[in-house]
Amino acid sequence: MTFRSEMERVAGRVEQRLAALLAPDTASPEEPYETAAPLGEAMRYAALGGGKRLRPFLLIQSARLFGVPEQNALDTACALECVHCYSLVHDDLPAMDDDALRRGRPTVHIAFDEATAILAGDSLLTIAFETVSAPKCHDDPAIRAELTHLLAKASGWQGMALGQALDLAAEQRPFSPDETTAMQKLKTGALFRFACEAGAVLGGADDASRAALIRYANAFGQAFQLADDLLDAQGDAAAMGKAAAKDAERGKATLVGLLGIEGAKAKLAGLVAEAEEALDPFGEKAGTLIEAARFVAERRS
Amino acid sequence: MTFRSEMERVAGRVEQRLAALLAPDTASPEEPYETAAPLGEAMRYAALGGGKRLRPFLLIQSARLFGVPEQNALDTACALECVHCYSLVHDDLPAMDDDALRRGRPTVHIAFDEATAILAGDSLLTIAFETVSAPKCHDDPAIRAELTHLLAKASGWQGMALGQALDLAAEQRPFSPDETTAMQKLKTGALFRFACEAGAVLGGADDASRAALIRYANAFGQAFQLADDLLDAQGDAAAMGKAAAKDAERGKATLVGLLGIEGAKAKLAGLVAEAEEALDPFGEKAGTLIEAARFVAERRS
Repeated sequence: MTFRSEMERVAGRVEQRLAALLAPDTASPEEPYETAAPLGEAMRYAALGGGKRLRPFLLIQSARLFGVPEQNALDTACALECVHCYSLVHDDLPAMDDDALRRGRPTVHIAFDEATAILAGDSLLTIAFETVSAPKCHDDPAIRAELTHLLAKASGWQGMALGQALDLAAEQRPFSPDETTAMQKLKTGALFRFACEAGAVLGGADDASRAALIRYANAFGQAFQLADDLLDAQGDAAAMGKAAAKDAERGKATLVGLLGIEGAKAKLAGLVAEAEEALDPFGEKAGTLIEAARFVAERRS
Repeated sequence: MTFRSEMERVAGRVEQRLAALLAPDTASPEEPYETAAPLGEAMRYAALGGGKRLRPFLLIQSARLFGVPEQNALDTACALECVHCYSLVHDDLPAMDDDALRRGRPTVHIAFDEATAILAGDSLLTIAFETVSAPKCHDDPAIRAELTHLLAKASGWQGMALGQALDLAAEQRPFSPDETTAMQKLKTGALFRFACEAGAVLGGADDASRAALIRYANAFGQAFQLADDLLDAQGDAAAMGKAAAKDAERGKATLVGLLGIEGAKAKLAGLVAEAEEALDPFGEKAGTLIEAARFVAERRS
């Protein structure tokens, strides 16, 4: 099976499980909430039918290193994807990045309204914690509690949400390369780190294996962001499914702006090499994760 | 100790613990995030220095019925309060209820800005799950996982967030008394129910005790909302710390509008009686919870 088809296969399973988690509540037909409020519909619009499901893929592949069956990692992977989708819905809001297009479709506050988008984001964040703490997620409650705690730390005021706050602050005053890297490590890096660390937790990995995966995740996250910035600087709107070069226009902090395109490409190659090196302890088993790092560096959309 | 002074004592402990949970991260002085982004400051503004801490109080008193020391219920109580504070920050946003004043102070999006308010709400929601899943919260990971799951269900798209979505929908078309009750059971009732149910979980209560507390919580929540609506219909801005009669002006669904003031007062008395009756199985131990139900029905602010 090629890497691409493996990614698509996993994305299909994630899509299917997310659809079940977000299915309308037909058990209470006497309470026709679906017609009164489009909250569930907006959550499904935001979370279903799109995306490469890269974070769930990393989580499932990291867990596989330790022999964890895909089924046993699937709900944690879906919880992570819900956190990612929530962050996109809120980041797109008029008060934040004010984006009208996402993956070639109107963003949630355009397709519905702003109040519904805020509540749908809130609810996707909440269902992530409902999912990862549920008995169905994992037999061992200690694992569930640990995963919940890690996911909350990765998402919140000392993780992804802080990264977004710093990214907004960077529109007000120029960030140095170090500050930009630190911001991106939070904004996009925290969830990639969770993906890999959760795989280690699910697999009962030892400290050295966990540390190796965290090192991989950090390099992977930086490579992902840098490739995204390069696409943004070079790409066109059609390939990205969003307004191209928008970040640069708004004076957003990107390493491409700070290093130049050639400098950024050299750094990107170094990050992919670092990600591969971090996986040395796992040998051939880590082939798919290595391909994933190359994939994000080379992607065109 | 009188009921009022007991409430104030517990509120003081909750305030102190919340302040510790939300303290600026001085462990990383090389990362001066506090100056770059006011996210933590906005969270503290939203969560500290105000409120009766009614939900934490109910949780701690419910746990006490089963002999749970206050210290062992405190972090769960603070997690619940963080969810409550998040909901206030987001409900006050311009796209939602558009309120400029809360407890006599500018709301978060006025005191800071809208993006910071969205992120501060998101982060208060997230820190709730970080707190309730943390080893410090409770020794038993199975209890932590169960509390996390219950709190997420109470807060999300089939709980409080759905209630807020329905409340917004009620501005568009008139809700019947039954619909209004169902909406309020979600919007304000879900967190009161969690408060009491979490006490039962922390106390290892049997099913009958848990059911009794849930019945109490449902009556309590309805009484709280009805008293709030009565204050809104009769009160003045100074006593409420917010614009009076605003809900009525906007055509928001309230039972006072549907039942009239005298009808609402009669219903309120019935709810308090039901709350008391639900606690019969606990005998004298439930005295404080009974006083709490009377307190919310009679409060003037």
